[in-house]
Amino acid sequence: MIIILKRNADPKKVDLLTGALKAKGLGIHYSEGLNTTIVGLVGDTTRVDEDQLRANDVVEDVRRISEPFKAANRKFHPKDTLVSVGDRQIGEGFFQVIAGPCSIESEEQMIQVAQAVKQSGATLLRGGAFKPRTSPYAFQGLETDGLKLLLQAKRATGLPVVTEIMSENHLDLFADVDVIQVGARNMQNFQLLKELGRCKKPILLKRGLANTIQEWLMSAEYILAGGNPNVILCERGIRTFETQTRNTLDISAIPVIKRLSHLPIIVDPSHATGTTWLVEPLAKAAIAAGADGLMIEVHNNPKEALCDGGQSLRPEEFDQVMGEVKRRVAFEGKRM
Amino acid sequence: MIIILKRNADPKKVDLLTGALKAKGLGIHYSEGLNTTIVGLVGDTTRVDEDQLRANDVVEDVRRISEPFKAANRKFHPKDTLVSVGDRQIGEGFFQVIAGPCSIESEEQMIQVAQAVKQSGATLLRGGAFKPRTSPYAFQGLETDGLKLLLQAKRATGLPVVTEIMSENHLDLFADVDVIQVGARNMQNFQLLKELGRCKKPILLKRGLANTIQEWLMSAEYILAGGNPNVILCERGIRTFETQTRNTLDISAIPVIKRLSHLPIIVDPSHATGTTWLVEPLAKAAIAAGADGLMIEVHNNPKEALCDGGQSLRPEEFDQVMGEVKRRVAFEGKRM
Amino acid sequence: MIIILKRNADPKKVDLLTGALKAKGLGIHYSEGLNTTIVGLVGDTTRVDEDQLRANDVVEDVRRISEPFKAANRKFHPKDTLVSVGDRQIGEGFFQVIAGPCSIESEEQMIQVAQAVKQSGATLLRGGAFKPRTSPYAFQGLETDGLKLLLQAKRATGLPVVTEIMSENHLDLFADVDVIQVGARNMQNFQLLKELGRCKKPILLKRGLANTIQEWLMSAEYILAGGNPNVILCERGIRTFETQTRNTLDISAIPVIKRLSHLPIIVDPSHATGTTWLVEPLAKAAIAAGADGLMIEVHNNPKEALCDGGQSLRPEEFDQVMGEVKRRVAFEGKRM
Amino acid sequence: MIIILKRNADPKKVDLLTGALKAKGLGIHYSEGLNTTIVGLVGDTTRVDEDQLRANDVVEDVRRISEPFKAANRKFHPKDTLVSVGDRQIGEGFFQVIAGPCSIESEEQMIQVAQAVKQSGATLLRGGAFKPRTSPYAFQGLETDGLKLLLQAKRATGLPVVTEIMSENHLDLFADVDVIQVGARNMQNFQLLKELGRCKKPILLKRGLANTIQEWLMSAEYILAGGNPNVILCERGIRTFETQTRNTLDISAIPVIKRLSHLPIIVDPSHATGTTWLVEPLAKAAIAAGADGLMIEVHNNPKEALCDGGQSLRPEEFDQVMGEVKRRVAFEGKRM
Repeated sequence: MIIILKRNADPKKVDLLTGALKAKGLGIHYSEGLNTTIVGLVGDTTRVDEDQLRANDVVEDVRRISEPFKAANRKFHPKDTLVSVGDRQIGEGFFQVIAGPCSIESEEQMIQVAQAVKQSGATLLRGGAFKPRTSPYAFQGLETDGLKLLLQAKRATGLPVVTEIMSENHLDLFADVDVIQVGARNMQNFQLLKELGRCKKPILLKRGLANTIQEWLMSAEYILAGGNPNVILCERGIRTFETQTRNTLDISAIPVIKRLSHLPIIVDPSHATGTTWLVEPLAKAAIAAGADGLMIEVHNNPKEALCDGGQSLRPEEFDQVMGEVKRRVAFEGKRM
Repeated sequence: MIIILKRNADPKKVDLLTGALKAKGLGIHYSEGLNTTIVGLVGDTTRVDEDQLRANDVVEDVRRISEPFKAANRKFHPKDTLVSVGDRQIGEGFFQVIAGPCSIESEEQMIQVAQAVKQSGATLLRGGAFKPRTSPYAFQGLETDGLKLLLQAKRATGLPVVTEIMSENHLDLFADVDVIQVGARNMQNFQLLKELGRCKKPILLKRGLANTIQEWLMSAEYILAGGNPNVILCERGIRTFETQTRNTLDISAIPVIKRLSHLPIIVDPSHATGTTWLVEPLAKAAIAAGADGLMIEVHNNPKEALCDGGQSLRPEEFDQVMGEVKRRVAFEGKRM
Repeated sequence: MIIILKRNADPKKVDLLTGALKAKGLGIHYSEGLNTTIVGLVGDTTRVDEDQLRANDVVEDVRRISEPFKAANRKFHPKDTLVSVGDRQIGEGFFQVIAGPCSIESEEQMIQVAQAVKQSGATLLRGGAFKPRTSPYAFQGLETDGLKLLLQAKRATGLPVVTEIMSENHLDLFADVDVIQVGARNMQNFQLLKELGRCKKPILLKRGLANTIQEWLMSAEYILAGGNPNVILCERGIRTFETQTRNTLDISAIPVIKRLSHLPIIVDPSHATGTTWLVEPLAKAAIAAGADGLMIEVHNNPKEALCDGGQSLRPEEFDQVMGEVKRRVAFEGKRM
Repeated sequence: MIIILKRNADPKKVDLLTGALKAKGLGIHYSEGLNTTIVGLVGDTTRVDEDQLRANDVVEDVRRISEPFKAANRKFHPKDTLVSVGDRQIGEGFFQVIAGPCSIESEEQMIQVAQAVKQSGATLLRGGAFKPRTSPYAFQGLETDGLKLLLQAKRATGLPVVTEIMSENHLDLFADVDVIQVGARNMQNFQLLKELGRCKKPILLKRGLANTIQEWLMSAEYILAGGNPNVILCERGIRTFETQTRNTLDISAIPVIKRLSHLPIIVDPSHATGTTWLVEPLAKAAIAAGADGLMIEVHNNPKEALCDGGQSLRPEEFDQVMGEVKRRVAFEGKRM
């Protein structure tokens, strides 16, 4: 960590500051320039508060040099994390495709879609029971009834299931769910993250709408630091000025995460763009860029879907996309 | 709402779609162009799901013409909402200044700051007990002990208090709190918003990091639609590419909210920029642009503040800012 | 185009407006709703000025339904454009790799790099003679001397050359250049675009730092409308809040452009990220997403490169990337 | 400037690097940490190329500590720059209002608007002769004929005139123009900036659509370093995700520029939002935040304006805004 001192900073105050930092076990290196003097802090700065330093009279600015995350950091954990979901694994050459409807609407729909996506080669089943909706007037999900239908589809197909949690109070209801999803809007719901750190289930952590990769890894760090090592990251597009797509898929996030962290990362091309015809090209790009999996929305009747119909593939469209996916996963030398 | 049909859309499918929309009580207007045919929907489209429409075979795109919010909409509620907090009011010419430390650290600190800000003219007291921190290793707040200290400061000064909630499970703890704050990271924690709609306390709803004004009003709509009319909006800067300031204060949000909605809006110049020397000019700008209040961080010892020290004013700095604030609120013909 | 009328708009003024629009040959469709009345305009609205309409007393807002570009629009030109560069072609299944140094520094460097990239399979040679630099104190390029060295390398290797133009006054100097590049910062230098519309050389039009896909196509439209059909688009990353990469590569732009337009599109992974180790994964992703080519920076001694050294590959690194590129272009069924 | 070394960097290569930097006259400070070793560079780093450093084998990352601008930097020029325009001055307590039509359309329009804005208190006259338009089919300005009409209005009213330049080839045509405006889209047209550095006329430099404050000051630096000290900065809104306003006015840019630089800064509330009813509140906010002037679009018949009608005030609306402006400029203790 680098502290940039103000010009003409009072030397006594500077001594007080560096004394306090030394007392915390940090090494101190001065570097006096023509116009700027900087102080380098050496040691474990993970717990040093930048804002507190900035408040000091003599401090002009503070720059962090090392990443503030440890448990999620590849530097300290060079080996890829392999997350197990039932008898499947994700990461380190194992590629998984999660598919299913945005929201669970009926037994018939859920079973039909589950069987169709299994047939096409999906390896995990998704379905939304609790739905985060921008409008209070929009369909909010079947909630506990939806969870029951999802678990029914799990029994019918043998596919492990993924579904989104919206409150730490619902954790008990998720006992038979295989992967708990944290949605983009809850990526910094720290109360929820703390609770999820206490369970051992795999957590699918979506990137927030406008969160940096570092903030995303810090949210993963909450779960890891809590004692749960099973975190799967999911890139789902970020908010930019472009309006042709609902969000902008940050494809670079895949190799960047692979370098900074040991955690597996998958891509959700459905939410990233909000448009069905973009799912296939973006799925291809994600595989080529090194993703460990995909999450794709499929609906048997998208035009009557109670949410996000515009981005859901029909089963026959999904089947075609899966043909491409399998060919390309094999090309990359990965296993599904 | 406007539906743009695909070129060469099957007329039978178009008839099915328009038939279904008519059955929902909506009027239908065709407009056939050279390259594009559009269908206008007339009636209450608040509950029409754009994404569901987009999933239809014959639909190219959908554009919403009316705002999707009703209870928060000035069109249907032309009169300004005036929110009462204890014996104070906010909105419609009543201006309030909320001040206090980012996080509550000790009895001594809380009482000292509370008395100082009261002395300088602050009309509400803030203090963070539950703190949303990006890092799990950062100070997370004194939690329930912090709440006790805040209520002690309320009794000592007579100032109503504002503090942030991080979980719907904490609502009982907030019984004696005057205004419940929803932080930027929880603006779309819909489970929390639903619970807050069931209480009657004033809610200070901060704008999310990268949320549009319309999404913000939709979050207010969750609270209003739940039965709680006491919502105060708080602009606190949005995320952009600029790096000189922590966030970019969206000053236009003030007049835009005033036009779209009847709810009061205040500005938080401390979080908007993350820098003390920007608090005063941005506070002045906010008053001139029509804000109904300010929220300013004050700390008696910012360099030892356990969070956000870099943006906290010292009591003597706050006192100087308040001199300017009072002069300008009077210039605008408003009352504090 | 849709005009949304103000509530209680004076019917006489509305009649005047619609009369004026009819006089321009446009058809008019009314659609009167409960809270909103809209007017649909039917016909060629390319030349209708939205802002002029918005200034009208009775108009609340205006929404464009059809795209404002014609010559670049796939709707009117369904067949892919194939741009010829010397004896090579780009688009419609023909894939090209443009490689070379960010800036031309010496004869030795230029010839060495040119021979190396040719050896590895690059099909066009790039090199910057006029350099757009943020700082006036940074190296501004060898200018006309640089152009000479580039043409020397062209003769030595037989590779067609691509280089950036920074002023319409330099057009004469570019007589022997094969492809003229318009940099991101000049994407909306309309005076330059007009001049380029008058020549017949292929133009490589980079996307602006923060320009929408529609604005980008409108800039292409300037060149096409001027009479030059040879436009190649180049996605090079957009500006977002993320700081791990210099820009955010908008991978979705490839399929979106392919759908909206008939023009070929290539990707520049070097500028998109500013980091060498990201060039390979992003090149792979671009090929998978359907790009027609790549532009990659290569330097024989990046640590002494006079600009953008941080993102330049060494010839041996480029050779390895090209191995992957060739394998993947073949996998996609395209020809190099 | 701080160089962060790679872990396990070869000490011989590090020595070579630091030797080369010392040879450039820079001082070197090592700071070896547990996980990271950094090298501080002391001296004038304005001409050190960060990207070149990043390309070095042993370098992980580079962080600039001092600002890369010198001539525009308040640290080296503590006193405010006061720019003279005819017998008027801008900066250091002198406030100017530039008003007039977006584009010049006819003698009658230009003279009428000029007299009206003078009457209301505008102190400089603007009018666009060369217009940067997104679409090649939109009105491109009256060009040289427009310039003639503008100069006619200057003679008729005595107001100095401001107009936009779009090519360095037009400089001769601007001989009688008082202030030359560089539009947002040309902020990084470096060829144009270099030419403007060679003349002595005041330059109004608009901030680019998505340019950082530092890049903006670097563009000013091009003009200043060329020998022209007369630069006026103009904030006109930046591109964000928000869609209620055309751009987001970055109000913080005013105090930030005042701290970083000695140059005067004005605000263009018309282009910042694209909406007439936002001009007044944003003009008020700009004055309160410390702006040195305003630039406001006025048109005698906005609904027939050939461009940007939607954001132009009518003369009577402008007159009302000016009432507020005068009252507030006086309140701030500035002179018009």
